[in-house]
Amino acid sequence: MDYRDEAWAALKRLRERSPLVHSITNYVSMDITANALLAIGAAPAMVHAVEEVEEFVGLADALVVNIGTLSPEWVRAMHLAAARAGSLGKPWVLDPVGAGATRYRTDTARDLAERKPTVIRGNASEIMALAGAANATRGVDSAHSASEALESARALARQLGCVVAVTGAVDYVTDGARTLSVSNGVAMMTRVTALGCSATALVAAFAAVHEDRLLATAGALGVLGVAGEVAARDWAGPGTFRVRLLDALYMFDAEAMKVMRIANV
Amino acid sequence: MDYRDEAWAALKRLRERSPLVHSITNYVSMDITANALLAIGAAPAMVHAVEEVEEFVGLADALVVNIGTLSPEWVRAMHLAAARAGSLGKPWVLDPVGAGATRYRTDTARDLAERKPTVIRGNASEIMALAGAANATRGVDSAHSASEALESARALARQLGCVVAVTGAVDYVTDGARTLSVSNGVAMMTRVTALGCSATALVAAFAAVHEDRLLATAGALGVLGVAGEVAARDWAGPGTFRVRLLDALYMFDAEAMKVMRIANV
Amino acid sequence: MDYRDEAWAALKRLRERSPLVHSITNYVSMDITANALLAIGAAPAMVHAVEEVEEFVGLADALVVNIGTLSPEWVRAMHLAAARAGSLGKPWVLDPVGAGATRYRTDTARDLAERKPTVIRGNASEIMALAGAANATRGVDSAHSASEALESARALARQLGCVVAVTGAVDYVTDGARTLSVSNGVAMMTRVTALGCSATALVAAFAAVHEDRLLATAGALGVLGVAGEVAARDWAGPGTFRVRLLDALYMFDAEAMKVMRIANV
Repeated sequence: MDYRDEAWAALKRLRERSPLVHSITNYVSMDITANALLAIGAAPAMVHAVEEVEEFVGLADALVVNIGTLSPEWVRAMHLAAARAGSLGKPWVLDPVGAGATRYRTDTARDLAERKPTVIRGNASEIMALAGAANATRGVDSAHSASEALESARALARQLGCVVAVTGAVDYVTDGARTLSVSNGVAMMTRVTALGCSATALVAAFAAVHEDRLLATAGALGVLGVAGEVAARDWAGPGTFRVRLLDALYMFDAEAMKVMRIANV
Repeated sequence: MDYRDEAWAALKRLRERSPLVHSITNYVSMDITANALLAIGAAPAMVHAVEEVEEFVGLADALVVNIGTLSPEWVRAMHLAAARAGSLGKPWVLDPVGAGATRYRTDTARDLAERKPTVIRGNASEIMALAGAANATRGVDSAHSASEALESARALARQLGCVVAVTGAVDYVTDGARTLSVSNGVAMMTRVTALGCSATALVAAFAAVHEDRLLATAGALGVLGVAGEVAARDWAGPGTFRVRLLDALYMFDAEAMKVMRIANV
Repeated sequence: MDYRDEAWAALKRLRERSPLVHSITNYVSMDITANALLAIGAAPAMVHAVEEVEEFVGLADALVVNIGTLSPEWVRAMHLAAARAGSLGKPWVLDPVGAGATRYRTDTARDLAERKPTVIRGNASEIMALAGAANATRGVDSAHSASEALESARALARQLGCVVAVTGAVDYVTDGARTLSVSNGVAMMTRVTALGCSATALVAAFAAVHEDRLLATAGALGVLGVAGEVAARDWAGPGTFRVRLLDALYMFDAEAMKVMRIANV
């Protein structure tokens, strides 16, 4: 299978259907996440009240549960929304931001993971913390490389029956049996806040239009990585880079797709 | 009356007085809303605690109540603030984001509307949901064109004694008797998050400096639409477009005003 | 002492160590604050739940407590975090946004100030309100110039044994005995939301790597001011200016340092 063709087909479908991505996500990431979803062709909606999350999941094509900024009331809403997505068979993606940094964060991430998300996307430390392998998160940054977390990711994927993505300089995506690597992106992406959260949201949008969630996840990460490379083509500090990244998602075409590097591991 | 002259006079007054716009608005829109208000010459303040909203309304020149991201505590604050604005005779603008999408959202929007806002601004589906005409919101996007919602807008305006704006490819602004159309803006505006919310905030700023709220509303929408046209003059993806839109609001001058198209309907 | 050399040394250390800045800050400022910290070389984390703030302070190198968007639950978290930072001897910076505007805000700011922050940074009206000298805040903008607030700042610094920074066209930084002025920055900085909040976060990052907090504070304010001057070199509306400001923080080099103007008062 040519993974690029699959990713391109998924992106075209995404732009035709404009999936509604219900995002329960952190305050820091809301602006860039919504704009990244709009730029790629999806429709974002940020809805978090316990009073309405379940009903809203019924309208959405996919759900994001991102624990970046937590509070007990939001955690309740996350559980309600995840349960409803599960019962409706809608894809939902867990972003365990900062798992491993505090007990509250690790416990919340693990409790949500037990609801069997369709995909989990985190950095190496977060995935290792979720898998019980390490408590090595520094704030919300990873203290490990993605490859170090690969075995944890595979174990977690098998245990939960889901896809796990560990993102870093190289991204790894696994369902426990198959593993893909995505070798796109640039270092400047670590100097713009919430691009990991935006990656999670793009994964949800792709999962809404592609049944093979391993490929959907790799495709979404590849698209973001390539957009990063396009944004970095001429010199750009992090302010300019962020602007161009949104432009690149919007412009993403068959030509851009050619530099996507997805491979079997 | 030349509507452009009126709008231009209002904008000049806005820049002289720099009205303080108290915004109880959603998390997604806070950055762009505050920056749009600053760019046009107003002063934003986001204050939502039940403990202080009433006191803060007393300091403000106008109030925005935007229900984009709801929770019961915020809804309480919205009611307190709206009631105080009403009793002080200060203009306040309701943005019923996502009315029609969930019962909680529709009920909240209707309850707030009963407090008789000065202006209501929404997309077609939201205005129709508020008027009881339809339940046709898809997430926070409209499933209807603005012209389809015009009768709902007129009925709502007459019922509540307020101005109602339905925004879309063409915007309509009505007080139930008079109706104006604003034919500015570009499609790219739908690819940047929270420009509808920003429109609502600009309406509040204009309403603070112009007694005729029908004209104030049309003028604010016209200014944002023209700024969108200026921002789109050279090619721009949504990242670049958003940046230029803020620049265009700041630079808005008599020359830009010439392309504003406000007409009687 | 050459203050520029000190500031440059601090910036180099900041970039080597990448201090983790735990920010309990307002919703409006989260995106720009996180991006400003990343641009200069620090690591931001926004964590506010009562359930985890104390544990997170233990991981952080500095703490920001910014009262821009208040609620009782967040105020509880602010107190817990500030107390923990105090007991661990970690620097923490208080930003009393809007102190003087409402009683809730003034009281909250004063209660937090009693926990003896390492640094307080505010505009003139906020510092005067905190010192009990005036109730003259207009929303979140200052109704006074920084120099008018200097005596209040000195009194407050002596009373609390902390550094107090009053920012404005010229910034003043005092520990009650010594006072420095920082004469950088451009007027366009008042047209971009939350640059004051971003200044506070940069102060925290500098305080994490420099023991002399008077100098650390002046250095941080100088860096932001110079970055503003760089961003304004060619014409820029507030949208473009904000983008270039982040670029300028990232690029900040010995050449940029040459225009920093820190002086004894």
